[in-house]
Amino acid sequence: MSAEVICIGTELLLGDILNTNCQYLAQELANLGIPHYYQTVVGDNVDRIHQVLDTASKRSSILIFTGGLGPTPDDLTTETIASFFDTPLTENAAILQDIEHKFASVGRVMSPSNRKQALVPQGAVPLPNPTGTAPGMIWQPQEGITIMTFPGVPSEMHQMWRDTAVPFLKSQGWGKDTIYSEMMRFRGIGESALAEKVAHLFNSPNPTVAPYAGKGEVRLRITAKAVDRTQAEAMIRPVATEIKNIAGLDYFGSDEATLASVVGNLLTDAQQTLSVAESCTGGGLGAMLTEIPGSSSYFLGGVIAYANQVKKALLNVREQDLAEYGAVSKIVAQQMALGVKQRLQTDWGLSITGIAGPSGDTETKPVGLVYFGLATPENKTMGYEYNFGKQRGRELIRYLSACSALDLLRRSLMTPNSGHA
Amino acid sequence: MSAEVICIGTELLLGDILNTNCQYLAQELANLGIPHYYQTVVGDNVDRIHQVLDTASKRSSILIFTGGLGPTPDDLTTETIASFFDTPLTENAAILQDIEHKFASVGRVMSPSNRKQALVPQGAVPLPNPTGTAPGMIWQPQEGITIMTFPGVPSEMHQMWRDTAVPFLKSQGWGKDTIYSEMMRFRGIGESALAEKVAHLFNSPNPTVAPYAGKGEVRLRITAKAVDRTQAEAMIRPVATEIKNIAGLDYFGSDEATLASVVGNLLTDAQQTLSVAESCTGGGLGAMLTEIPGSSSYFLGGVIAYANQVKKALLNVREQDLAEYGAVSKIVAQQMALGVKQRLQTDWGLSITGIAGPSGDTETKPVGLVYFGLATPENKTMGYEYNFGKQRGRELIRYLSACSALDLLRRSLMTPNSGHA
Repeated sequence: MSAEVICIGTELLLGDILNTNCQYLAQELANLGIPHYYQTVVGDNVDRIHQVLDTASKRSSILIFTGGLGPTPDDLTTETIASFFDTPLTENAAILQDIEHKFASVGRVMSPSNRKQALVPQGAVPLPNPTGTAPGMIWQPQEGITIMTFPGVPSEMHQMWRDTAVPFLKSQGWGKDTIYSEMMRFRGIGESALAEKVAHLFNSPNPTVAPYAGKGEVRLRITAKAVDRTQAEAMIRPVATEIKNIAGLDYFGSDEATLASVVGNLLTDAQQTLSVAESCTGGGLGAMLTEIPGSSSYFLGGVIAYANQVKKALLNVREQDLAEYGAVSKIVAQQMALGVKQRLQTDWGLSITGIAGPSGDTETKPVGLVYFGLATPENKTMGYEYNFGKQRGRELIRYLSACSALDLLRRSLMTPNSGHA
Repeated sequence: MSAEVICIGTELLLGDILNTNCQYLAQELANLGIPHYYQTVVGDNVDRIHQVLDTASKRSSILIFTGGLGPTPDDLTTETIASFFDTPLTENAAILQDIEHKFASVGRVMSPSNRKQALVPQGAVPLPNPTGTAPGMIWQPQEGITIMTFPGVPSEMHQMWRDTAVPFLKSQGWGKDTIYSEMMRFRGIGESALAEKVAHLFNSPNPTVAPYAGKGEVRLRITAKAVDRTQAEAMIRPVATEIKNIAGLDYFGSDEATLASVVGNLLTDAQQTLSVAESCTGGGLGAMLTEIPGSSSYFLGGVIAYANQVKKALLNVREQDLAEYGAVSKIVAQQMALGVKQRLQTDWGLSITGIAGPSGDTETKPVGLVYFGLATPENKTMGYEYNFGKQRGRELIRYLSACSALDLLRRSLMTPNSGHA
């Protein structure tokens, strides 16, 4: 038994809309533990939908359709599925009444074209659509094949899925197992280096471990299949612990954790406050920190010191050092961190100055070179140099710079008084 | 001749990520006028990828793959395509050197597992990946079948598509008709209100006009099909002019234009400078302004005044007004704008203070209420109140706040001395 998602709509093939329905159904099927190996998108065309049905009905037993249930002539899904299985359409009186009622309730008269939305293949069970006019259906046209259709409008599809499809699937004895995952997040190690360290876990059948590359982080997903969530979590726990031991400080959190939320928790635990001084990120580090609701309890603010005169006037960066070492230098990064900490009277000061590109580079300072400064509660300042590489481009260099700054602070907060990694 | 998009990745079948690659490639194929009837998603599994290849190679002549080109054992795309066509893999010395060089340039040593990314089927032409380690390929394994592979990381895939795939497709004589679009961007008017104003244009067959809802903006896309870009542009021009006349100041730019780039151009033309003071956006406005390369010529910096003591100490916000009106008030927004303008000695000062939620609201100040301040070169200050609605959520309220601030400045820059809209 396995499911296949088939999305119908020429607008998907023209790229006019993003296919969020596929992701929604994929997550739902994963949560139900129903295997799902293929997704197909096809336009509003009888022959091509027939071809997709032919392929899908040979390899999958639950075919989940979205789209093509509207009243216009290019909405062909129901009639095309019926004709593939040589089954006539019949008008469903209850649906017709429901559609007429919906029009009447907003003071309108049903247009004749809506009448076709009341047609279902003989033997199919209509799936009511509480919010729109397009009903779906559940139909078992032959032994071993279950068809489910939903409108393409995401909100209508979600409600019909939750209210009618999920109970039906469970009533059939499908979706008994639960698939539950923990997404572990890492910074400071590459995807391939991490994968090599935990390679012995990749062949485990249950729970499975799989690596993912993310923006500014590397991820490992541990997925367990079990009768319920408690058992799945119990299967995941020892694997997660083993990985944490292997990764050490490179592991920063799981699931919804972000570098900003982890740093926020550490600052809250330590009852310490933070301010930032940003040059090349232009406010991106502050924006990342304040994504977290409640961040005002530890993050007081910062200075966006894009121009050198702002570095001098607000952060006490020394003119002589700007002239001698340049604004993009370790010493200026350290002065920025200390300057903002003192000006805003916080426990920690964190700074970024670098060359995000595409221009502004020199022979010794390439695009992608970024310096970080950290001023500690003891007024010690530290400086760090990273080279993200110019090929990554302005946007990603700025994003990774903000991630790296948070990660430097995270490591300092986790290893107090160590002078740290 | 028709193309089929095949996205490979178990993470797509688990719903972990949204498949934006399909939409990108669909739009690109539409722009090139290359027909595209199917999209398929399949996991990292040899047998199932072979099955998809079997189906796709019988119905489509250009098979465009994304994903599964990484260094880990579950990245199977290249070897699975090669085995389907009974072709051995060979190591490409130039790719291997490029990968080694990329690791070296950031001071790291290539992991042994990255070596497999240099393997291509015999006869295939590697597609260089300027930003990542995973190259793609173009391969014609048999008469009438062209295979193209790209990494799943969207930014890498986009660049490789533009730089190498599009020129290749055109060199083959595919994509002869040009479909060319202008995406017009609007702020300050809703999608349906704009659609009603330009409804008479929606039935035009060529060029077509279609509305799109965007994040923080409304869009109209004018699309012309013609023999070349020059002719297409000539067809688009009068329609665009008519829409600009209808929309007035609500139109802010087309195609790659953003509110930040438009504001940047206006400041550059006026030879004026800007600083910002941010509370609820926490640096997001500065980050948006500095997305634009070269923004340092007009954007000097700002103050992230998340805490009230920062508003007082750095922006001269009056303690009495904070107590009487609260930090989220028009008068404080105006003082923040003037304060940052004076402190950073810029021509303009722009400020944001609001309640992004989910908490922090009061009976009179709901989540979504945001005030903006603008200090002009003449030291006049203006204040504005917006209510974005709490249902939009923290992230979107913050994003829309930054957009609105830029739009207020844009309108002031476009209507000097008017006191403005």
